[in-house]
This record gives sequence, structure tokens and C-alpha cells, in this order.
Amino acid sequence: MTTSLARSLACIDCGASYPLGYRLECATCQGLLELRYDVEQLARHGPDLFSGTGLWRYAPVLPIADPAHRITLGEGGTPLLDCPRLAADLGVRRLLVKFEGSNPTGTVKDRSSTTAVAAALQFGYRATSVVSSGNAGSSIAAYSARAGLASLVFAYERASAPKLLHMAATTRDLVIYKGVYDDLITLWDRLVGEQLFFDCGASRNAYKHEGKKTIAYEIAEQTGFAPPDVVVAPVAVGETFIAAARGFREMRDAGWIPRVPTMVAAQAARANAVVRAFRSGQPIEPLKIGYTVAEGLAAGNPGRKGDWVLRLLRESPSVAGEAEDDEILAAQRRLARTEGIWAGPTGVATLAVLEGLVARKELDPDQTVCAIVTETGLKTEAEPPSRAGVAFDEASLRALVRERLGG
Amino acid sequence: MTTSLARSLACIDCGASYPLGYRLECATCQGLLELRYDVEQLARHGPDLFSGTGLWRYAPVLPIADPAHRITLGEGGTPLLDCPRLAADLGVRRLLVKFEGSNPTGTVKDRSSTTAVAAALQFGYRATSVVSSGNAGSSIAAYSARAGLASLVFAYERASAPKLLHMAATTRDLVIYKGVYDDLITLWDRLVGEQLFFDCGASRNAYKHEGKKTIAYEIAEQTGFAPPDVVVAPVAVGETFIAAARGFREMRDAGWIPRVPTMVAAQAARANAVVRAFRSGQPIEPLKIGYTVAEGLAAGNPGRKGDWVLRLLRESPSVAGEAEDDEILAAQRRLARTEGIWAGPTGVATLAVLEGLVARKELDPDQTVCAIVTETGLKTEAEPPSRAGVAFDEASLRALVRERLGG
Repeated sequence: MTTSLARSLACIDCGASYPLGYRLECATCQGLLELRYDVEQLARHGPDLFSGTGLWRYAPVLPIADPAHRITLGEGGTPLLDCPRLAADLGVRRLLVKFEGSNPTGTVKDRSSTTAVAAALQFGYRATSVVSSGNAGSSIAAYSARAGLASLVFAYERASAPKLLHMAATTRDLVIYKGVYDDLITLWDRLVGEQLFFDCGASRNAYKHEGKKTIAYEIAEQTGFAPPDVVVAPVAVGETFIAAARGFREMRDAGWIPRVPTMVAAQAARANAVVRAFRSGQPIEPLKIGYTVAEGLAAGNPGRKGDWVLRLLRESPSVAGEAEDDEILAAQRRLARTEGIWAGPTGVATLAVLEGLVARKELDPDQTVCAIVTETGLKTEAEPPSRAGVAFDEASLRALVRERLGG
Repeated sequence: MTTSLARSLACIDCGASYPLGYRLECATCQGLLELRYDVEQLARHGPDLFSGTGLWRYAPVLPIADPAHRITLGEGGTPLLDCPRLAADLGVRRLLVKFEGSNPTGTVKDRSSTTAVAAALQFGYRATSVVSSGNAGSSIAAYSARAGLASLVFAYERASAPKLLHMAATTRDLVIYKGVYDDLITLWDRLVGEQLFFDCGASRNAYKHEGKKTIAYEIAEQTGFAPPDVVVAPVAVGETFIAAARGFREMRDAGWIPRVPTMVAAQAARANAVVRAFRSGQPIEPLKIGYTVAEGLAAGNPGRKGDWVLRLLRESPSVAGEAEDDEILAAQRRLARTEGIWAGPTGVATLAVLEGLVARKELDPDQTVCAIVTETGLKTEAEPPSRAGVAFDEASLRALVRERLGG
């Protein structure tokens, strides 16, 4: 089936329901909206609803009605990799890495960029815009180009060189901003109402957000609908976390899976507003933050989505944790050496957090844990090893090989 | 079916046949060897032989017998993207881009690294080695790490920063070499016989080479076994070209596809030994080459595989072409802007060559053309745009957005 089963938008705060259309918040209470689907049909047909490959395999649970709007660069269908050596290192029984670096622009953002740009086409927009620390900008720009739409991307001045090159190549219009994401996104969100561009930001747009839900559907399918006990998802504004949790709940409500995995919210210690609030039992207090190596997690004010994450964490048995920059960089090296997976700091924050939680016994190690690794390592900017090269002749090459491998 | 249908190794020069085993060349004539399969079974079962996703879906036409040796990082299953805007730009009727940047380490090399490292396990080796301009090194290192094998990688001193970072992260032992690939590979090939490492080079190993054949199988499946009229493949040493041609021939011999696509060999003008020989009708004359932006194509002496490419080009209607560095960089920008696909110079050389061939009417534009784009753009090293950022307040942000998008 390729028909969308999306039926309405519903306010997550007051429950008000709206017909499908481009609406960013509840008319009554300004609450965030989420998409609702025909759960009866989901229950009746089961996963046989899905056909094809990649993200659009899940078209029935996405809100894009017309197949002509479902633009693609080949996103989704990312590997779920069993990592026995890393599991042993971290001390967990079984560890699965959902490696999102295999997406077309190298990050999980492609899942939501696809539905964002598809929705821009669905609602007749000619231009997109986003404020980004780097990954979202590249991704929205790439999908906008693919759809033939103009894009206006605001990129953080400290984004890595590979991210800037990528954005410069794919964006119609790139603006480098000074200052922090939190401040600019607040101003930018106010401009959305003028309808000069389609809102490709993470703050409110339910259509954009929805693509990321497919990560839960993929994990479920890849495990034969016996999903892992625990899923560790990163939280900046909270999109991936919320979307994964919503996907698992949808499948549970349709009777496809017996229960929702324990969700773990992973933050950078330098941008840990949600973790703090979860621990203290208090509301989120926005933080003034500086730089963290996990560039994509650098949000000190997660806004209303942060409240949503907190609500999800409090509604069911959940865990939240944070990792320092040095722990994140250590996790990046360990993942590369033990399993050959080269991921960026933003991507491995989940693994760094997992390690800490297991070490502190905040997580039962006798479970199957899935860590979402959101980003390829190819976007990492760091000092490369010295290029001081050696010239070889046959004798010196033989001597080196024997020394290194002859052991 | 997950059983390998590999049956023997055969010399491509004298036809001598050998049982399956780790053998790099013909005992009689030193010719290169290729793997042969049970074509009757292929013909009888058809593509229903294949199951699962990714590269190992094609296990029946790969030479790894034991599923336990089939290590994976999620390679293969890359998108085949219809590119109507770029087709119009280049003046061809229909253009399909096979985007290999979606592989785990961002290049087509992952296809052959998988079977190389799997074969290293199959034949009981504990270490791998390769001489690389950058991509092969990252890939072999990653798969070796994944398999728990030691790796000794020789990397070119001018490899891009993202490639060097990647190799340093995943390789057990990284050695930077001075001088050109052609010279070092000649010395290194002589050491292979000492069996201190498994040969992960491109010169001779049929098991390593074989993984790349899956690109033809994927293209065929993704087009419903009505493959494109033309397939443009890059040629450095010639692995991808030969493997693609062999895959299509195998499918034709098994009656799966009516005919083999016209194969186009694409080289960088600065490393064009095969194209020169094809044009002149003479044997290949090795070239002393310098730097080309298409780092992965920088082989001036393609060795015996170059002869093999030439033979394939001469056996059936084929085309060969080259592109200058500035044409390659222009193709990189165009692909990003028109279709949102961010690929590296090595990857887009095929598109630059295609453009020239169509412009010079050496290729009928009224055909369906598939260009293999072998590399993500995220490995490109270039000057990023200026980070000189702008600080915004609400008024200045509104003014900028209206100016840029207000039309």
C-alpha cells in the first residue's frame, strides 16, 4: 500500500483535533501538534502495509498523500549492526548500533528533511528555510535542491569544515550566523508566520518531524518486531527521541509489538537542560551554553519539544544521562577501533551516555540495547595525522612489513 | 538461498581452471584469475536466488562459503536515483545516478572490502594490508576492525583530511607514504607472497574484486532487470569497471537480462592511460602522473587490470572518455545544485566524462544512461566558505529573509 493513513492533527496538550493541513500549533492553547493515523487499518493489515525500500516504504504512516511529492535521495534503510566487541567493552549483554551515517547526507536529519520538503511541495511552497548547527542545514538544502525549491540556510559559524562545504554546495542561499542556535531560532520562529518559506525547523512542524518516526519502524522490522529492551536516543531539541518514542507507541497501539522499549534520553553534559529537569523533577530551565564537540546537541533551550521529551520520560519507565566532551571523543575512537564504524561526536553521544549509565548501574546490563548513532564521522573536523610521509624502496618496505606484522 | 554458487577460479588469459582457494594468478601463464559460478543454477532459479538486504543479498554470486565469514557494516543497497534536471542539463534522455556515497565508509570500496576481509577470514589470515590513495585504506581498515583483524594501511601523503582522519581512526597501523601509488604498489605486490598479510589490493585478488560485482546486480534489480542502455564506470586500476561488466555478462549468460549495457570507461585526463590506448588501438603505455582532484583515479599504470579493461572495451561496443580537473569540479557543483547529491571529485568523474561525450556526440543522447558515482562529497577537502558570521536581531533577520525570499 502506498496510501497515507494520516487522518488528523491533534494537540498534544489539550487534545483538540484538526483536519490535515499546514498548521504549526493548536489554535486554542498553542500546544504542539502531532499527526494521528487510522490505527484500525494499521491493526488490521499489520506490517504487510509496507512495500518497497528505504524511508518511503513507510508511506502509510507518513503524512504525504501524493506519491509525486515523496522526493528521495535514498534515505532510510540504514543498517542495524550487532556489535559484540563493543558490547563486551561496555559491559552490556547485546548492543545494536542503528547507524544513521549511511543516510544520503550522512545523518539522521535526512529522515525529517524528506518529509519536510515533501510537505513543502504538498502545501505549495517554493522555498524552504532552517536554522542549523550544520547537519540539518546540509540536509534541508540537499532535499530542497532535489525538489527544485529555493533554500535559505542559516549555519552556525563554528560548524565543521565538511559541514560548511556541504552546505555551500547544496544551498541556494547560505547565511553564516554569529551567536548561538537558541537565540536565532527564537527570532526565526517568529518569521515563519509570514509564509515566505516553509518551516523546516525542529521547533514545531509536525510534518517535518514525522519522517524521523521511521527509525522506530525500521528498528522494529530489523528485529522481527521483537524490538530491543532499551533504545538510547540523543536529545538536542528532542526530535529523534520523540519521533522514535511515537513510532514505537504507534506500533504497540496497533498490536504489532508487545511493548515500547525503555527510552533513554542522551545529552551532552554541556547542553543538558532536559537531563537536569528529569533528575530534579522540576520543569526545564533553559541554559546559556557554549561549544560542545557534539555540535548537533548544542541546544540549551529545547523549547516546547523539550517539555514533550520530559513528559515522555515521566510517562513510562525511562532513563536520562549525559556525557562530557572527552567521554564523547573517547566513544568515537572506541567505536571506530572495535567495530570499524566511523561516526561523529554528535552521533556517538548515545554510546558515551550508555557507557556511563552502565558503569553507574543506572541501566540493567543484561538487556539488549540499541544506540542510535546519528551521524557519520566524515563530518568531523579535527587535526589529521601528520602528512610527513616515508619513501620506500623494496628493502625498507619489506623491513617495515615484517616488523609490523611478522610478530 | 545463502549458499555460494562459486565453483572455480579461471585464468582470463589461457583459460586454465583451478579449484577454489587463495590463489592470485595462473600457475601456467601468470594471468589474472576470475571466479566462475554454477550458471545452470543461476539460469534455473533466476533472481529468486537472492534474499535479505544489502550486499550479502547476493551471496550466491559471491565466493564466501561460510555465512559466519560474511562480515558487514551495512554496505550495498545504495540508491539508484533518477535525475531529470541533471539529464536535461547534460542533454541525455534519462540519467540514473548510482550513488555509492551511501555505503558505510562513503565509497564503492566497501563492496570489495567486505569480500576481501571475508576472504581473509575464510583463508585463515590474521592481518590485512593495502596501498591506498585514501578511500580503499579507510574501507579496508574499517572492515578489518569489524572482523577483529589487524590492518596495515599505506596512505598517500596528499589524501584529503577527512580521509586521513577516517583512516587514523579505524586502522590498526597507518603508514603515510611519499611518492606515487604506482611505484609503491609495485613493491608492495612483491611482498604479498610472504603471506604476512591478506592481499587487499586491487592488482590481483579475485576474492577482493568480486564484491564490486554486486553493483551490476543491484542496478539490474533496481531497473526490474531491464538495465540502462549505457553504464559509465570510473577506471583507475579498473576494478569497478571490470566488476560491473562481469556482473552484467553473468546475468546475460544466465538469461536474466537480454543484453549487456554499453560500458563507458571514465578516466581523469591526468591519469588516462586506458583511454589513450583505447583511442590509439595500441597496448597501454604506463604514464608518470602527478596530482588530480579525482584522487581515487590517480593511477598512471593500471597494470594487468588495465589490459583487462581494454580487452572488455574492445570485445563489445564500448566508449572511453576523460575529463579535466576543472570539468570534474564543475560536475561536482552541478550535481549538488541540481539534484542535491553531494559527491566527491573521484565520484563525479563519470558525470564529467559523460557530459563531454554527449557534447562531442560520441554517445547517443536518446538513451538511458547510468553513471556510477563512487564517493560521497564528505571526503572532499577544500577551502570552506568564510566563517565571518552575521549577528541578527529580529528586524535585521526579517529584512534579510524578505530580501532573499520576498521575491
